[in-house]
Amino acid sequence: MDRKERRRFKRKEPLNLQVTDIAARLQEGQASALSKAITLVESRQKDHRRSAQAILAEVLPNTGDAVRIGISGVPGAGKSTFIESFGLYLCSLGHKVAVLAIDPSSPVSGGSILGDKTRMEKLSRHPNAFIRPTPSEGEFGGVHRKTRESLLLCEAAGYSVIIVETVGVGQSEAEVRDMVDFFLLLALTGAGDELQGMKKGILELVDAIAVNKADGDNLERALSAKEEYSRVTMGITPATSGWNIATLTCSALYQEGLEDIWKLVLSFADETRQSGVFDCRRRNQAGKWLQAEVRRALVERFMKDGDVQASLKLLEERVREGTALPSMAAHELIDVYFSLNKK
Amino acid sequence: MDRKERRRFKRKEPLNLQVTDIAARLQEGQASALSKAITLVESRQKDHRRSAQAILAEVLPNTGDAVRIGISGVPGAGKSTFIESFGLYLCSLGHKVAVLAIDPSSPVSGGSILGDKTRMEKLSRHPNAFIRPTPSEGEFGGVHRKTRESLLLCEAAGYSVIIVETVGVGQSEAEVRDMVDFFLLLALTGAGDELQGMKKGILELVDAIAVNKADGDNLERALSAKEEYSRVTMGITPATSGWNIATLTCSALYQEGLEDIWKLVLSFADETRQSGVFDCRRRNQAGKWLQAEVRRALVERFMKDGDVQASLKLLEERVREGTALPSMAAHELIDVYFSLNKK
Repeated sequence: MDRKERRRFKRKEPLNLQVTDIAARLQEGQASALSKAITLVESRQKDHRRSAQAILAEVLPNTGDAVRIGISGVPGAGKSTFIESFGLYLCSLGHKVAVLAIDPSSPVSGGSILGDKTRMEKLSRHPNAFIRPTPSEGEFGGVHRKTRESLLLCEAAGYSVIIVETVGVGQSEAEVRDMVDFFLLLALTGAGDELQGMKKGILELVDAIAVNKADGDNLERALSAKEEYSRVTMGITPATSGWNIATLTCSALYQEGLEDIWKLVLSFADETRQSGVFDCRRRNQAGKWLQAEVRRALVERFMKDGDVQASLKLLEERVREGTALPSMAAHELIDVYFSLNKK
Repeated sequence: MDRKERRRFKRKEPLNLQVTDIAARLQEGQASALSKAITLVESRQKDHRRSAQAILAEVLPNTGDAVRIGISGVPGAGKSTFIESFGLYLCSLGHKVAVLAIDPSSPVSGGSILGDKTRMEKLSRHPNAFIRPTPSEGEFGGVHRKTRESLLLCEAAGYSVIIVETVGVGQSEAEVRDMVDFFLLLALTGAGDELQGMKKGILELVDAIAVNKADGDNLERALSAKEEYSRVTMGITPATSGWNIATLTCSALYQEGLEDIWKLVLSFADETRQSGVFDCRRRNQAGKWLQAEVRRALVERFMKDGDVQASLKLLEERVREGTALPSMAAHELIDVYFSLNKK
């Protein structure tokens, strides 16, 4: 063996018995094993990370079979109630449903904690449902490794519908779009204020808009909001090639419209699988995730270099004083590093 | 001289005559020279970039003297009218005002083109005002090098107030916060729908909120919106240490409230200069910019390596097939690269 091969051979350590056990029980559908695995994924400890990677490598062949649905909506649109109602409906059809979240808001600003079981208590108690709160750490470059890896684990554990919830802070809708098949926006009043306040560009990410709270006194308003969304979305290039953005109404509280939404998701999956768009998107998502991870690992490793740290410190001082331009200083640092380190 | 020194000496090419000329005229305040320099900054051509860097290096000592104000607001809040009125007011006081913009929205979604002179026609014709439309290219990692470098050029050209406008798409408010001293949010109706729709976290970035269109029939509503914002912002940790978020009303159309806003900015500058917060923030902003540029240059250089491109292609195929996990694949790639390339 040459040097490269010897190094790779050494790295194939025998799987830790505990890891093998967790992976096996997870693939049998045991929620406790799934929880443990996700905890390892979220951990910052090196040995936990290694175990998590080992479990993921082990179960990877059994991923990919679920329908991945992203759900976003302005605060007050009723996301928790919706996800709970929708989740319970899917469970009643025999599905296993997992709910994950992306929410970088700080608790300081009063941001709700997504995936909080107390907000979806009934669902959290259903034996075929699995709810996981948002991982505590923010993500560099929006790659959301923890949520993506948790999603894969849920699939390996047999969950057939994975819901990724987000509250629309920063780039989170774009990030959710990058990890799901179908993106549903839960709306409330429709256009006017809501549309104005809505981040431009979100309509170009969605596959369907459901106007919630279409019940009682609010019914007419909801129907008219739906019409408004239909009009607004006509001029938009859809996120999914060959699919027209659908608009519906629903009432999460009274469990109305949920069947229509699920039928829509199934049509979507059928059509896009037939056209090849479904698989194409998943492959692109995986490719983008790889690119993001490479960038992250690269920067991490680079910043560990002692010489780099020293140079960076000096450059930072000059930049802070205003005697060096960041873009020039950065290029010089990289130039020097790469010319010194060329093999 | 040792190898390092010889390399650095060779790089100090004599400044191109045209570059010297542009830099000189720019520092004399000639708007045409400033335009040329910004065009070079925005260009993708290598020789243009080099000239841009040379000009920036030349004028860097003359930067830092302006007040940098960020302005954001929901669509419809009246940003163009406000910036025009406010800009003209500042010009009337003898200031030279520059307006730059960050707007990653695609024209497809009907996004307004910020910094569009046709929306601020009167201001664009004032001899002491300079308006530059959004640079056409989006930015990796939100560093907005082009806008930041344009800002420095404007300062070197003698503009005493630089306004950076953004429409609040994606992370643009956070990015504007990272390049200005004072951040003003232009609001319309106040809380309720507007606040709900507003991205969580933006209130933690602002130094003042001005409720616009406080005139005619809308006056009462504007005043009550101002009160609502005062209440809401009481519980928020201010973006600027030692400064309480101010709330005001104004009418851009009737040029009311502009003096108060300017007085507020001046107080802010005074107080924060005294407390040291002003300089501290600028130094941190420069440091962050450097970090972002280093990451960008690093990734760019890394991706140029032939071996990397080949490995990446193979890994991407495996990841897309679902036979490799992005996070693991990325780390392996980086590990191999760094161990092969160690000096």
